[in-house]
Amino acid sequence: MVSRKDVAQLAGVSVAVVSYVLNGKNNVKEETRNRVLAAMQELKYEPNLLARSLKTQRTQQLAVFVNYLGNPFEAGILLRLEAAARQEGYLVFFQTYTPDLEQPLISALRGRVDGLVLLGQQLEYETFQRLKALDVPVLSVTQSPMLQEWGIPCIDLDWVKQYREAILFLKNKGHHRIAYMTDTVSGCYHLHRLRAFQEAIRLEGLALPEQLILDGGGKVETATPMFHDFIEQNASNLPMSALVCSNDLMAAAVVDACKTNSIKVPEQLAIIGSEDILMTQHTDPKLTVIHYPREMLGTLAMNMMKQLLLKSPMESFTVEGELLPRGTA
Amino acid sequence: MVSRKDVAQLAGVSVAVVSYVLNGKNNVKEETRNRVLAAMQELKYEPNLLARSLKTQRTQQLAVFVNYLGNPFEAGILLRLEAAARQEGYLVFFQTYTPDLEQPLISALRGRVDGLVLLGQQLEYETFQRLKALDVPVLSVTQSPMLQEWGIPCIDLDWVKQYREAILFLKNKGHHRIAYMTDTVSGCYHLHRLRAFQEAIRLEGLALPEQLILDGGGKVETATPMFHDFIEQNASNLPMSALVCSNDLMAAAVVDACKTNSIKVPEQLAIIGSEDILMTQHTDPKLTVIHYPREMLGTLAMNMMKQLLLKSPMESFTVEGELLPRGTA
Repeated sequence: MVSRKDVAQLAGVSVAVVSYVLNGKNNVKEETRNRVLAAMQELKYEPNLLARSLKTQRTQQLAVFVNYLGNPFEAGILLRLEAAARQEGYLVFFQTYTPDLEQPLISALRGRVDGLVLLGQQLEYETFQRLKALDVPVLSVTQSPMLQEWGIPCIDLDWVKQYREAILFLKNKGHHRIAYMTDTVSGCYHLHRLRAFQEAIRLEGLALPEQLILDGGGKVETATPMFHDFIEQNASNLPMSALVCSNDLMAAAVVDACKTNSIKVPEQLAIIGSEDILMTQHTDPKLTVIHYPREMLGTLAMNMMKQLLLKSPMESFTVEGELLPRGTA
Repeated sequence: MVSRKDVAQLAGVSVAVVSYVLNGKNNVKEETRNRVLAAMQELKYEPNLLARSLKTQRTQQLAVFVNYLGNPFEAGILLRLEAAARQEGYLVFFQTYTPDLEQPLISALRGRVDGLVLLGQQLEYETFQRLKALDVPVLSVTQSPMLQEWGIPCIDLDWVKQYREAILFLKNKGHHRIAYMTDTVSGCYHLHRLRAFQEAIRLEGLALPEQLILDGGGKVETATPMFHDFIEQNASNLPMSALVCSNDLMAAAVVDACKTNSIKVPEQLAIIGSEDILMTQHTDPKLTVIHYPREMLGTLAMNMMKQLLLKSPMESFTVEGELLPRGTA
């Protein structure tokens, strides 16, 4: 492999001068710089980034913890984060986060990344401490309990506000028994959304008894059998007339389970999803959803990360959602 | 930050001994090894992986080039690749590949990864040469033209076989004018599938004139207006009775466009997708698809990568697909 020394020899300069050129220093004469660049080209020299990042202590790499990449909501955020990061010269790692892997994940990242983006994981306090020891800025796209209290800035919807809007919309259509489907297993941002929904229901003067909080497990594969069982247990006489789901995969599963069990949507059950993934426009009927403006999340997150890398203090940021009435409510 | 020197001092050994322990060498007495490990634990020493990887010349990082992470087909493959890689102690980068970014992508990866996984990109010959210069093993999950000729092993379906099965299925239902929707813009694996479809049609004794090869652009957002225009141009009198789509996103878009234009599926148009992403079970009617066994791709690819890292020669690998008749054909 071609080294800086080879380039220096061919260009007739010292190795230090080659380094100056590589690092964009201004202390090299134009003519010398051109000679060095010509030598690099001739020798097809490419700098070893691994060695370089060791020197600058910057890896130009960011890590993203995803919860479940099989959810198009998260895949879409990752897609946009990568696009925005690349514009700033950063490569993006992603890691599927599970609590049992906290220690190996954090060890694996030590010295490899300049910053970490969470997708609303529900962290243990000890993990949070270890993250601090990584000494890299952390921010979260979507929120989960504790993150903000620990000073990790989050980008998210104002869920209480969004859910109040959805509940009001349902109330205006005569719904007063409104259930909520969450995912207690993964926790993560689902827990934050659940708490916001509970608050929103209270503010709208309705009740959300335990039996109207369903656990759909976050995926189509888990929500489908869960909701079939629920219908069966209630002998098709559902204890609610409307259901808000904390993600769209579960909402799509419920639409399907209703069809299989001859429960008419929205007449017998109105359904609202919380993200507006592509699939929601292909269900039958099409899903009424809260639109989560994912398009802008990548740029927003990257802007925030840049500030954090400069050690600027950073507040959490609220984006505006929108209720999109379609066919299911 | 705690260094090896600190560990060595506390354990009363030389820095070299600490390094032996870290690198799992056998030349350290059990008792000494335990003392070093205890010192590491006491000091909460964690090895700097960046420095270590520079020494071992192994980064324990793999890169994956994706075409479009917004396609659940690719997101699903990435998800499984990551799971399999992690089991082997590898972190996974992903990069969205576009031809104009070839040079920066390759420069960015130099020295940072031990191997590269392609998701069927359509590479220029020069890119291929530069990839070789990276001196890391390359394999492709899904195939595109040239990759195999260049000696890059691929994991993919036998598309000619799968498409023959689909065409035969359609023929048995009386279809003889069968169209194909591809994506000529991104090229990548779409081009490989198109060629296989052309071969399969020929082998089944049918014709595929130019006008029956549609370009849907690979996404719902592109295929929807394209197919609306197509219906309009043909005054709802379609020149085919069946359509096979090279991915499911386009197939879902066509189902929707048919509904909007009162074209009955499958009576007036039978539709088959090529991947079996989750969404295909939520369209109305549900999509008939070729099932692509993505579940096993991560493990398969990682096994192949391990062999390649050991410099073993590696053949391409064919997985078995399956036609799943549902509602659209």
